[in-house]
Amino acid sequence: MNNIISEIKVSNNIVLLCHNNPDGDAVGSTIAMYILLKRLGKEVDIVLDTLPKRFNFLKEYQDIKKESTKKYDTAVILDTGSIDRVNSAYLLDTVSKKLVIDHHMTNTMYGDVNLVEDYPACCEIIYNLIKEMNVSIDEDLALPLAVGLLTDTGGFAHKNVLPSTFTMAAELSSLVDLSDIYIKVLRTITINQFNIKKKALDNLELYNNNALAVSFITSEDMERYNVDEDECGILVGIPLEIDTVEVSIFLRKYPNQTRVSLRSGHIDVSRIASIFGGGGHVNAAGITTAMPYEDLKEKLIIEVGKSINEWNNCHR
Amino acid sequence: MNNIISEIKVSNNIVLLCHNNPDGDAVGSTIAMYILLKRLGKEVDIVLDTLPKRFNFLKEYQDIKKESTKKYDTAVILDTGSIDRVNSAYLLDTVSKKLVIDHHMTNTMYGDVNLVEDYPACCEIIYNLIKEMNVSIDEDLALPLAVGLLTDTGGFAHKNVLPSTFTMAAELSSLVDLSDIYIKVLRTITINQFNIKKKALDNLELYNNNALAVSFITSEDMERYNVDEDECGILVGIPLEIDTVEVSIFLRKYPNQTRVSLRSGHIDVSRIASIFGGGGHVNAAGITTAMPYEDLKEKLIIEVGKSINEWNNCHR
Repeated sequence: MNNIISEIKVSNNIVLLCHNNPDGDAVGSTIAMYILLKRLGKEVDIVLDTLPKRFNFLKEYQDIKKESTKKYDTAVILDTGSIDRVNSAYLLDTVSKKLVIDHHMTNTMYGDVNLVEDYPACCEIIYNLIKEMNVSIDEDLALPLAVGLLTDTGGFAHKNVLPSTFTMAAELSSLVDLSDIYIKVLRTITINQFNIKKKALDNLELYNNNALAVSFITSEDMERYNVDEDECGILVGIPLEIDTVEVSIFLRKYPNQTRVSLRSGHIDVSRIASIFGGGGHVNAAGITTAMPYEDLKEKLIIEVGKSINEWNNCHR
Repeated sequence: MNNIISEIKVSNNIVLLCHNNPDGDAVGSTIAMYILLKRLGKEVDIVLDTLPKRFNFLKEYQDIKKESTKKYDTAVILDTGSIDRVNSAYLLDTVSKKLVIDHHMTNTMYGDVNLVEDYPACCEIIYNLIKEMNVSIDEDLALPLAVGLLTDTGGFAHKNVLPSTFTMAAELSSLVDLSDIYIKVLRTITINQFNIKKKALDNLELYNNNALAVSFITSEDMERYNVDEDECGILVGIPLEIDTVEVSIFLRKYPNQTRVSLRSGHIDVSRIASIFGGGGHVNAAGITTAMPYEDLKEKLIIEVGKSINEWNNCHR
């Protein structure tokens, strides 16, 4: 952490970047860092070519640039595990220094200085950095930090939440209305999302004694209900609330390809995704393939079914 | 708090009670208190004539008695705002002292000593009591406290969550797997609940520019999907996730009566419930009535619609 702090101190013209298709933690970390650096008197821009609109209640969201031709001396890249996932990556070619701050332990250490620590949200590292720099946390800083903390912990529900995460939440909750942010970022969907969710529930099938849930939507459904891929992100997780469901397979059927999201309680779905050319984490993985839909679906049900049976034999 | 502590110290034969149809906070508070009192060397029973089975993963759950003919000197009543809501109330007639510990600020102060404090969960008061008594909190005590804290705060989402609630969570999370408990008590439904949820979504209608959601199930649906009233408790809240929905009306149609649950973001639904002989809180209220279903539904839509229009005129 001290290396990052001393590098930040000698940098004056900084660009902040994060990963493609930024989530709440990427946006929250970037904006919190932006506020911090401005307070330290730095020239700083956030440049992101893609940006979901659902975080536009953060007032600094309006300052985010879609592109920039400015010359920066330093890039600070937040919440991004590898260089091929950097949003607005063209800016990396022009800077003389890359500082990486991330909480993915799979980080490839592509920065000149890398602060990679195992926290549930990158925002918790930024929080620690702010504390270490003796900058006081007010409402403006607490808001983006809270967005990152809430979204990446699933509202404090995930396994990796630490006692320190709750201690951070205690401080943030004394500064901002955490419940209000919680509802906004985790419990609010649009009518369009609600309608596509109903469609996905109608298409749901259960296999392996209700341990495997399979559902799908088509690109025509997405057009009919006017939702994009980002807005369909919630759908794969829904069947996991059923007490018997161990794996959820969710397919999106496009004319020339199929995209698959896989979620699990315990089983390694990244291994299954890799069989079909995809990848990801143990409990959350994905596939994009041109393989015919029906064939893919059948093979996935067989592969996941095998894993469920193996797991049942070992653990139940 | 000190009055309660001194009364507990001189009591030796204690019965623990809570409210009818106990929720996670009632069960969690009662069990935490049971463990505490046993550690202090007291003779103590929990007696509850109704008890939901979904908290049976708490090992002290097995000790809870359905009835008792024993003579107790003291009753400690947890999480219960008024004497007419006490579970196994017949035991109150035999004790010489009633101690009330509750977090409902509407408590009628029916005890000989009343510890009523404004916390999101009664379990937070029990936690403070344990601290005050210098009893150390271990895994056994942390588990029921966590159940109460998580269920009554909706997983830290409710408005009344305090910084101290998160500080308590930080300590509990160092002792038990909070994520595991979270999933068990807040994110798990049965296949039967999932099927009735799909039915309720199919029956959903939206009014007042999508600000009012109305849905229903019949007692035949409940029989077909093999769910009871307690298991249908989740259904009224679902439409509130839609960004435009301000009030959710959920009706259960029985042969000779209709039960209604009302939930709102801001509007006072207890006032609307009272028009139809029901009651409750500002954001959560209920009605049980023999009024004909179609007539009731129509009148509710009109009454709630009026409130929504008034609220829109004042606040939007």
